Amino acid sequence: MFISFEGIDGCGKSTQARLLADHLVATGQTVLRSREPGGSAGAEAIRSLLVEGDPGRWSPVTELLLYNAARRDNLERRLLPALARGDWVVSDRWTDSTRVYQATRGGERHVVDALQDLVIGREPDLTFVIDMDPDQALRRGLARDHDEDRFEQLGLEFQRLVRSGYLGLAKDYPDRIRVIDGAAEPDVVAARVRAHLP
Amino acid sequence: MFISFEGIDGCGKSTQARLLADHLVATGQTVLRSREPGGSAGAEAIRSLLVEGDPGRWSPVTELLLYNAARRDNLERRLLPALARGDWVVSDRWTDSTRVYQATRGGERHVVDALQDLVIGREPDLTFVIDMDPDQALRRGLARDHDEDRFEQLGLEFQRLVRSGYLGLAKDYPDRIRVIDGAAEPDVVAARVRAHLP
Ligand SMILES: Nc1ncnc2c1ncn2[C@@H]1O[C@H](COP(=O)(O)OP(=O)(O)OP(=O)(O)O)[C@@H](O)[C@H]1O
Ligand SMILES: Nc1ncnc2c1ncn2[C@@H]1O[C@H](COP(=O)(O)OP(=O)(O)OP(=O)(O)O)[C@@H](O)[C@H]1O
Ligand SMILES: [Mg+2]
Ligand SMILES: [Mg+2]
Repeated sequence: MFISFEGIDGCGKSTQARLLADHLVATGQTVLRSREPGGSAGAEAIRSLLVEGDPGRWSPVTELLLYNAARRDNLERRLLPALARGDWVVSDRWTDSTRVYQATRGGERHVVDALQDLVIGREPDLTFVIDMDPDQALRRGLARDHDEDRFEQLGLEFQRLVRSGYLGLAKDYPDRIRVIDGAAEPDVVAARVRAHLP
Repeated sequence: MFISFEGIDGCGKSTQARLLADHLVATGQTVLRSREPGGSAGAEAIRSLLVEGDPGRWSPVTELLLYNAARRDNLERRLLPALARGDWVVSDRWTDSTRVYQATRGGERHVVDALQDLVIGREPDLTFVIDMDPDQALRRGLARDHDEDRFEQLGLEFQRLVRSGYLGLAKDYPDRIRVIDGAAEPDVVAARVRAHLP
C-alpha cells in the first residue's frame, strides 16, 4: 500500500510519516520511506537543483518538469519495485504537493494534471493531509535550522493559500484523501492517522 | 528567425552552426547561438546531470523530462527574449533530437510529442539536418577529446537508426526541415545551408 503525507510547511508531515512507519514496522510490515522531491539517487541530484538557490531560479513550468523528473525516477527505481514486492511505501509528499504549490504560485493546474497523467500515472492509495493553522506551523518550521527554505520565505499569506488548496483537493479526491487535525501532540495525531488504516 | 541544426553525432552540426552565425553576423545581423541541452544557466546545470555518468543513469522518460526542463528554461530565459528583439537564434539541436534519440532508445514518441505541445510549444522556423554516413561521422566524433560521450558509446548501429530517424522526420515536416548533404568540406556544406535562407 502506498501512503502519502501532505500539508503546509511545518505541519508535521515528516514526524507523522516516521511515526506511521514505526507503527507498521512494529506490526511486522516492511516499509520503504521516501521524501519528495528525492528518494532515489537521481531524484536527490535533481532535488538539489530545486531546493538550492534563488526563489526565482526556475520558472513555474521548468520547476514542474524538474519535480516530475525526480518523481518519475524515484517511482521507477524505488517505489514501484517495493510495491511489487508487497512492501508498504510511506512518502513525505507526492503529486498533491505539486498540484497545490504550483497552482498557488501561478503555475497552471492543467499542466500539472497533464504531466501527472503522462509521465507518473500512479497516485497514492491513501493520502493524509495534516491540517494546521499556518501561524502555528510557520512558528514550528522557522524554529528549525535548515537552508531548504524557499517556500517558507514566501510567508504566512502564502501558507494560508496552500492550506485552502489542500482542503480543496480533499474535496476533489474524497476516496483517497483524509484530512487529519494536526493541532495536538504528535502521538495523538498519529493515533488519528492510524484510525484510517484498512 | 529561429534556426536549428540536427543530425547524427559528429556530422558537423556545431561547425555549421558556427559558420552560419558567422555569415549572419557578417551581414549585420544579431545572432544568439545556443546548444541543446544547455544555453541558459539553469539549462547548463541540468545538462550536467544529463551528460555525466552512466548511460543507464536515467530511464528514457526521466531523461525526457530533464531535456524538456533544460529546453524550457533556455527558451524562456534566452531564446524568446532574443526572438522578441528581432535577433536570429541559431541552435545546435532542438526538439527533433529528442524525437529521434528517445524514439531510437525506446522512449515513446507520443510522450515526446505530448511534452513538446504541453511545455515547449515553439518549433524552429527552419531546421537543417546535416546528413552523413555514420562511419564517417563516428570517425570524426571519436577523434575528438571529450567526456560527453554517452551517445557515441552506443555505437555505429545506433547511429544508423538515428540517421534514418532524421530522414523520416524530414518527411514528417517537409516545410520546416531541409536535408543537407554533409559529406564535403565545411565551407561547401555551409554554402549549401545558406542557399536555403530566405
Ligand atoms: N504534533 C506536534 N506538536 C508539536 N510539535 C510538532 C508536532 N509535529 C511536529 N512537530 C515539530 O514541528 C516541527 C515541524 O514538524 P515536521 O518536520 O514533522 O513538519 P513537516 O510538515 O515535515 O515540515 P516541512 O514541510 O518543513 O518538511 C518539528 O520541529 C517537529 O518536531
Ligand atoms: N565538413 C567537414 N569535413 C571534415 N571534417 C569536418 C566537417 N565538419 C566538421 N568536421 C570535423 O568533424 C568533427 C565533428 O564536427 P562537429 O563537432 O561540428 O559535429 P557535431 O555534429 O557538432 O558533433 P556532436 O554531435 O558530437 O556535437 C570536428 O572535429 C570537426 O572539425
Ligand atoms: Mg518535512
Ligand atoms: Mg556538436
